Amino acid sequence: MVQIRKESVPPSPAPSAAPTSADVARLAGVSRATVSYVLNNTSAVRISEATRRRVHDAAEELGYVPHAAARSLRAGHSRMVLMPAPNVPMGPLYSQFINELQWALGRLDYTVVQYGSIGLRGDEAARAWAELRPVAVLVPGGGLGPQGVHVLKRSGARAVVTLGPERVDGAHALLMDHHRVGHSAGAHLLARGRRRVGVVVPREPGLEFFSRPRLEGVRHAARDTDATVAELPLAYTEEDAARLAARWRSLGLDAVFAYNDEYAMLLMRALQDEGIAVPDDTAVVGADDLTLGRLLRPRLSTVHIDLPSGRDLAELVDRVVRDPAGAPEAHEVFGARIVHRESS
Amino acid sequence: MVQIRKESVPPSPAPSAAPTSADVARLAGVSRATVSYVLNNTSAVRISEATRRRVHDAAEELGYVPHAAARSLRAGHSRMVLMPAPNVPMGPLYSQFINELQWALGRLDYTVVQYGSIGLRGDEAARAWAELRPVAVLVPGGGLGPQGVHVLKRSGARAVVTLGPERVDGAHALLMDHHRVGHSAGAHLLARGRRRVGVVVPREPGLEFFSRPRLEGVRHAARDTDATVAELPLAYTEEDAARLAARWRSLGLDAVFAYNDEYAMLLMRALQDEGIAVPDDTAVVGADDLTLGRLLRPRLSTVHIDLPSGRDLAELVDRVVRDPAGAPEAHEVFGARIVHRESS
Repeated sequence: MVQIRKESVPPSPAPSAAPTSADVARLAGVSRATVSYVLNNTSAVRISEATRRRVHDAAEELGYVPHAAARSLRAGHSRMVLMPAPNVPMGPLYSQFINELQWALGRLDYTVVQYGSIGLRGDEAARAWAELRPVAVLVPGGGLGPQGVHVLKRSGARAVVTLGPERVDGAHALLMDHHRVGHSAGAHLLARGRRRVGVVVPREPGLEFFSRPRLEGVRHAARDTDATVAELPLAYTEEDAARLAARWRSLGLDAVFAYNDEYAMLLMRALQDEGIAVPDDTAVVGADDLTLGRLLRPRLSTVHIDLPSGRDLAELVDRVVRDPAGAPEAHEVFGARIVHRESS
Repeated sequence: MVQIRKESVPPSPAPSAAPTSADVARLAGVSRATVSYVLNNTSAVRISEATRRRVHDAAEELGYVPHAAARSLRAGHSRMVLMPAPNVPMGPLYSQFINELQWALGRLDYTVVQYGSIGLRGDEAARAWAELRPVAVLVPGGGLGPQGVHVLKRSGARAVVTLGPERVDGAHALLMDHHRVGHSAGAHLLARGRRRVGVVVPREPGLEFFSRPRLEGVRHAARDTDATVAELPLAYTEEDAARLAARWRSLGLDAVFAYNDEYAMLLMRALQDEGIAVPDDTAVVGADDLTLGRLLRPRLSTVHIDLPSGRDLAELVDRVVRDPAGAPEAHEVFGARIVHRESS
C-alpha cells in the first residue's frame, strides 16, 4: 500500500449555496409547481414546449439538480433498486450479468445502487438498506431472512427479490442452486469411471455460500454408488496447493472437482509439479467455463453455468413494483452443464 | 441465458402501512423529538438509559427504520459516499481495495453506495449522482470534468475525490498514473536487451483508460533509444490471440508487454502453440501480479501495482467532509515495480 502524501494545489473558490427549484422558477418566470412538473416529466399536466424549454434552460444555467430524496419523500417511494455489493471478486460471468441488469433497469427508468454491506449480517443489513427507501431490493447469495424481508416491505420496498438456493418467506425468488454445479461435475466424473472423488472447498471466507452446495451436489451424485467423496479445504495460494499436492498420493483420490476454474488451475499446476498425471492419475474438473480453462494443458473440463438474463430480471422487478400485492413468484433460473475437455 | 419461468407459490399477506416515528413515540410513551434524538444517536441531549431502551424496544417491536433521505433533508447532507460502479470486471486487486475502503468508511459511520452508471457519460453521470445528495463522491477512472465537480458541490457534496491520472479543477485528486505501469515494463524489457517491443491494447471497450497510458509509458521508456514500440490490438478470445500469433514472425518483435497478466496468459499460450519460444524468441511481461502468473510455465514476469490504502483514503474523505473549504489536495498514490520471473 502506498502512503497518501500531500502536495500543494492552488485553492478553488468555495461553492455558493445550492440552487433550489424556487431559483429555477424565478429565472424561468414560472411557478415552482411548473418546474416540478417539467423536471419530473409529469405527463398529467399540459405544459407548452416553450415553457418546458425555459425551465430546462434555467435549470441548466443555474446548475440545478432535483433532489432524489425529496422527490421520493413526496412520491412515497424512489426509483432506486438496491443490491448489496459483493464482498468477494465475482469474475467476468457475474460482472456481465450485473451490467446487463443495470442497463435493462436503466431503460425502465430505475437507478441501480450497490450497497456495501461489509460487516453487516442478515437483518441488520436489511435495516441499513431500508434506510435508503429503495423501491426494489435484489439480494444475491444468502443471509436475508423473512424478518429482513418484512422490514424492507414495511419501509416501502415494493419488490424484494432473492437470487439464491431457497425461497425466503414474502420475497420473490430467483432460484440459483449451486447444488446443480456440483452434481454435474460429480455425475460426469462417475460416468468417466472415477470412484474416489475429492471436492475443493475454498478456505477464503465468503465463498461458503457457493462451495457448500457444490460439495453437497457431488455427494448427491455419488449416493447409491460405490464412490466416495472427500472434502479438500484449499486456500488460493501456491503454498497451500503444494501442501495438498504433496499428500495427494496418500489420499488415494482419482478425481477432483476443484470448486471453479481458478482453483482448478491452481491445483492442477501443483499436482503436475508433484508428478501426478492429469487426467491419467487424477481427473480435474473446474466450474464457470472461463477462457483460462481452455488455455491450460491439458484443457480443463468445467461446468458451464447459465445465469438468468438481466433483461428478464429487470422485467420481473418492474412487474412486481407495479403490482406489489401479487403473490411471490419463484423461478428456476440457473443452468449447469458439463463441458468435457482433456483434464477428465 | 436461462428463461425466467413462473412457478406458483402461496401468496403472503400484503404488508401493512410503514410504521412512523410517531408510532414509536406512542408505544414508548415519549415525544417524537425524543425518538429522533435516540435513534439518531444525538449526544447533544441528555436522555436516560431507560428511555433509550424503551425507544429502541418500541422501534424493534414495530419494525421501524429511520428514513435516510428524511434525515439527510433535515441535516442538509447525508452520510452517503457515492462511487460509480465499475463497468468492467476489476479483478481481485481492485476488489480488495474497495472492500478495505468500505470497511474503513463504515468505521467512520459513512455508508458507501456504488452507483451503476452504464450509458451515462461525464457530466450527465455527475447530475445523476448529485440527485442522491451524497456527502462525498469518489470517482475512479476518468470522465468527470470541472463542470461535473461543480454540479456535485452545488448539490451539497463536501468532498469530491478523483482517482485517476490527472487533477480535475475543484476536486481532490489521488493521482493513479498507469503510465508508470507501462514505463516499468518497457524499461525492464529494454534492460534485458530487447529492442522491438509490442504492446497489447485490449479491444474490449472500457479499458482504454488503463491501456492508453500503459502504451504511452512503454513509448516513454523507449524514447531516445534505438528500440521500436508497436501497438497490438487484441480481444480476449482464443481466436484473436491465435490470429495475432500466426503473424507474429512477420511482426519481427522480440518482446511484448501484454497489458495485464490475463492477456499475457492468453497471448503466451497462443505464441507457444505457434512454436514461438518464451522468453528465447519473445519475452512476455504482464501486469497486476496475480497468482495465475506464478502458475504459468515459464513463470510470468509482471508489473506489481500498489494501490492506495483504503484506510488512508477513508481518512482523507472524512477530513475533507469536516473541512470542505480547504484547498484541493493532490496525492501520488500509485506504485509500480517490475517482478522479474522466467518469461522475460
